[in-house]
Amino acid sequence: MVKLQLSKLAEILTQAGFPAKLEGKDRSICGVNTLSDARDSEITFLSNPRYVASVKETAASAVIARPGVEIPERLSILRCDDPYGAVTIAIITLHGHRQHPRWGLNPQASIDASAKIGANPNIAAGVTIAADVVVGDNCTLYPGCYLADGVRIGNDCTLFPNVVIYNRCELGDRVTIHAGSVIGEDGLGYAPNGEKWVKIPQVGRALIGDDVEIGANCTIDRATLGQTEIGAGTKFGNVVVIGHGTKIGPDCMFVGLVGVAGSVTVGRHVTLAGQVGVAGHLAIGDGAMAGAQSGIAADVEAKATVFGSPAIPMDNAKRSMYVFQKLPDWVRRIKDLEREVRDLREKLNGHDEQPVRAAGTSPRTP
Amino acid sequence: MVKLQLSKLAEILTQAGFPAKLEGKDRSICGVNTLSDARDSEITFLSNPRYVASVKETAASAVIARPGVEIPERLSILRCDDPYGAVTIAIITLHGHRQHPRWGLNPQASIDASAKIGANPNIAAGVTIAADVVVGDNCTLYPGCYLADGVRIGNDCTLFPNVVIYNRCELGDRVTIHAGSVIGEDGLGYAPNGEKWVKIPQVGRALIGDDVEIGANCTIDRATLGQTEIGAGTKFGNVVVIGHGTKIGPDCMFVGLVGVAGSVTVGRHVTLAGQVGVAGHLAIGDGAMAGAQSGIAADVEAKATVFGSPAIPMDNAKRSMYVFQKLPDWVRRIKDLEREVRDLREKLNGHDEQPVRAAGTSPRTP
Amino acid sequence: MVKLQLSKLAEILTQAGFPAKLEGKDRSICGVNTLSDARDSEITFLSNPRYVASVKETAASAVIARPGVEIPERLSILRCDDPYGAVTIAIITLHGHRQHPRWGLNPQASIDASAKIGANPNIAAGVTIAADVVVGDNCTLYPGCYLADGVRIGNDCTLFPNVVIYNRCELGDRVTIHAGSVIGEDGLGYAPNGEKWVKIPQVGRALIGDDVEIGANCTIDRATLGQTEIGAGTKFGNVVVIGHGTKIGPDCMFVGLVGVAGSVTVGRHVTLAGQVGVAGHLAIGDGAMAGAQSGIAADVEAKATVFGSPAIPMDNAKRSMYVFQKLPDWVRRIKDLEREVRDLREKLNGHDEQPVRAAGTSPRTP
Repeated sequence: MVKLQLSKLAEILTQAGFPAKLEGKDRSICGVNTLSDARDSEITFLSNPRYVASVKETAASAVIARPGVEIPERLSILRCDDPYGAVTIAIITLHGHRQHPRWGLNPQASIDASAKIGANPNIAAGVTIAADVVVGDNCTLYPGCYLADGVRIGNDCTLFPNVVIYNRCELGDRVTIHAGSVIGEDGLGYAPNGEKWVKIPQVGRALIGDDVEIGANCTIDRATLGQTEIGAGTKFGNVVVIGHGTKIGPDCMFVGLVGVAGSVTVGRHVTLAGQVGVAGHLAIGDGAMAGAQSGIAADVEAKATVFGSPAIPMDNAKRSMYVFQKLPDWVRRIKDLEREVRDLREKLNGHDEQPVRAAGTSPRTP
Repeated sequence: MVKLQLSKLAEILTQAGFPAKLEGKDRSICGVNTLSDARDSEITFLSNPRYVASVKETAASAVIARPGVEIPERLSILRCDDPYGAVTIAIITLHGHRQHPRWGLNPQASIDASAKIGANPNIAAGVTIAADVVVGDNCTLYPGCYLADGVRIGNDCTLFPNVVIYNRCELGDRVTIHAGSVIGEDGLGYAPNGEKWVKIPQVGRALIGDDVEIGANCTIDRATLGQTEIGAGTKFGNVVVIGHGTKIGPDCMFVGLVGVAGSVTVGRHVTLAGQVGVAGHLAIGDGAMAGAQSGIAADVEAKATVFGSPAIPMDNAKRSMYVFQKLPDWVRRIKDLEREVRDLREKLNGHDEQPVRAAGTSPRTP
Repeated sequence: MVKLQLSKLAEILTQAGFPAKLEGKDRSICGVNTLSDARDSEITFLSNPRYVASVKETAASAVIARPGVEIPERLSILRCDDPYGAVTIAIITLHGHRQHPRWGLNPQASIDASAKIGANPNIAAGVTIAADVVVGDNCTLYPGCYLADGVRIGNDCTLFPNVVIYNRCELGDRVTIHAGSVIGEDGLGYAPNGEKWVKIPQVGRALIGDDVEIGANCTIDRATLGQTEIGAGTKFGNVVVIGHGTKIGPDCMFVGLVGVAGSVTVGRHVTLAGQVGVAGHLAIGDGAMAGAQSGIAADVEAKATVFGSPAIPMDNAKRSMYVFQKLPDWVRRIKDLEREVRDLREKLNGHDEQPVRAAGTSPRTP
């Protein structure tokens, strides 16, 4: 385990673009942890104001916090304008990235003779690699992964256990796919014949760009024709479901349980929050965002923020949702108005004995 | 790769029930592709009017299109009233269905001595088949599949990698299950005992009918007692979740991320769009449809189309959703009315000095 | 197969806390089944009034029913105040829990030399156990399971096929995880750098408490720092997705397709119905419940029942949803009022020739 003086960590953060200043005692730190889980000789951080109270009870020895935020005297402090960015660097410095087991080219992996495996392979027992597959250099394949015939994966990829890549799909460089995800399965492509469904062979592929990271148990359909595409640098949470022929731009972030139907075009740096659904054949512009559980049923413009089901601009959705929660009150106010107007009419009629048309006479189901 | 003259393809389409007529040059075609992905010597199609503009830029050599639709002169055209149906036949003709690797009965599959395997098996290394399993003829089982004791699967089935079938479940003939799906796991069956949950043994089964195709990473519970059933010809997208004891009729189509609770009865040819949820113990009639993200909380009649959460008839839902998006405007109109009515009352009171009951006086939280 | 006289079963139910009295003929019973699936010599039960009609058609020989409920004469009856509780005992008595295959320590399991395996192991071929793993006594691991380095699992655990536990995660005693679930994958932890996402090493863990049962194809993120926790006795349906650092109390029940974002705190005995979503950093109190498809976007108090998206107290939500479904009618009533008020104003103006401000004149988009 790495140990580090706080003064040294302050230097490292500063060099990484997060200028940090040590307040209080210089100590040796051996790890980063949350306010509640940290123990002695660990450093924690305070970024979200929601957790200000917890800092009083933390067992950590030091904390990364913004200037001006009050911190108990017993803690050393690294003052920094961006504690969240700084803690990322601190974690990388003190903990580093996951070390994979080293299998080399395990003889109990089942690799077709026609497959080409790059330099420095790390391929576990229980991996199956079919005909004509190409695997780049420095790839780690955990047990239970299956690369179907004609699959190509770039350099420095990591596939966690039980990842399945269907035939002829391609992954770029530095792609990470978490356990149980499936790339390139057939989409729901059927032509109706009366009540029966005639399967349309799904002859397209799925292409996953460089630096993509995909969560666990996701499913990304191959295209019926042409290709499904996930742009470089895009990150998916768990159980993200992408339909056939959909093309997603670079640097997007889709949170867990997002479902995107087929033939959708998504621009760059689009954020879809948890459980968002997108209907087929739509276009979502660059930089758009959708709030959790939104149901996108129409094209979304670049930089738009939408919400609700069906999704509309976020501000409108929030205003309508606010009224929605008070609807029974508004109904009462409408009924009051109806009563009031009836009273006024009767009073006015009493003045001159002429009838006025009654409120609420258009046809309706009450 | 198959090559085919357009005139010959027109004949094949016509014979398959999609009468097609060649316009322009007869050429040799080697594949079907989308408007945007097609290359020279490929044929594409134009079905959805959304893509009319793209036909001008396609690199394809030929296109299947409806009579009357304008197509650039450089392209050969197969005129056909149903381009989508026709392209299905074209894909089957030119590309065919997926060819699986041939493993025979791989000696590294782990097959219990009591299991019965049909003729012409295609069972990969890394498959496990437990006691008393019966596998029909011509079945393909990819690596990582697990058939628990007493499982029976029919003829011509395909299980993609890492499919798990729990004990005593049954599949009919020509069933296809995509990677990572699980059939017959225990449902959420517990009897409450204070705050504790007492597990009810899930002793029923799941039965999957002939010609069913199930997407990737789906889960279909076994029944507590009796059986969960998926009717013949039904098709599921990815991550469809079916609760214990639910019985789904034939020829249904459920899109990705659909969740159906337990003890639901679904008729034939029912369509549930993406992310639809169905509460327990309900009945959904033949031919019913539910729009994306609908939450079905009551029985649905045959042929009904429902939408929204809770789901109501589609037309009603759309009208209410339209009003919902304008709710802040309606609130303003109600407030205007209240002000107006107050004015009228004051004016009328001014006439005769008699008070009229004020608007908005019934008890409410504003 | 166990056979049992009804009189004996009545005794067993009574001893188990569900006093039962035999009415009609004492018979030998060999199984429990549903009203519709039961055959001769099986016992069924009637708990949900929805199924009263089906009891006339059941082929069962006996039924567990409440006193006073009418039952056809041909059936023997076990009268009991809690048929659902009683049938749980009947199922355990007559069917028992699932018997797993016996593999012992299969030599084709791949177990690192540094791993410690407890007494009476039941570990299948195709299981991989990495360095420094500790497995308790009497654990059953089905094929395709992967325990990464440093994983610890307690006694009497069952992992169905293809379950993956990432490095250093821990399971308590008597934990059951269904096929395809993944524990401890990295969450969506990235620091933004312009449009790029910088991965934050996810150095925390996931801890699963005693007696937890997790459905198929679930995903439970490890924490970025500290730990994700699932409390003892909690039960998950299928495809439940839990974000990093979330802490869930004991004896909760989450139904299928529930998604909980990161850093959420959930109390004890909380019920989330199907497809519920919970936003990040929230707190949900003990005993709270959320209806299906709810979107929880704010803290929920102990014992509260919430519903809707965004979720509000259930009663309020239902009242607002009721009005929502009639919104077009309310719009018509508002328009009628506007017309009526216009008439009244004109009439009043006719009296004295003074204009009154028109209804609906504040700025709005109609």
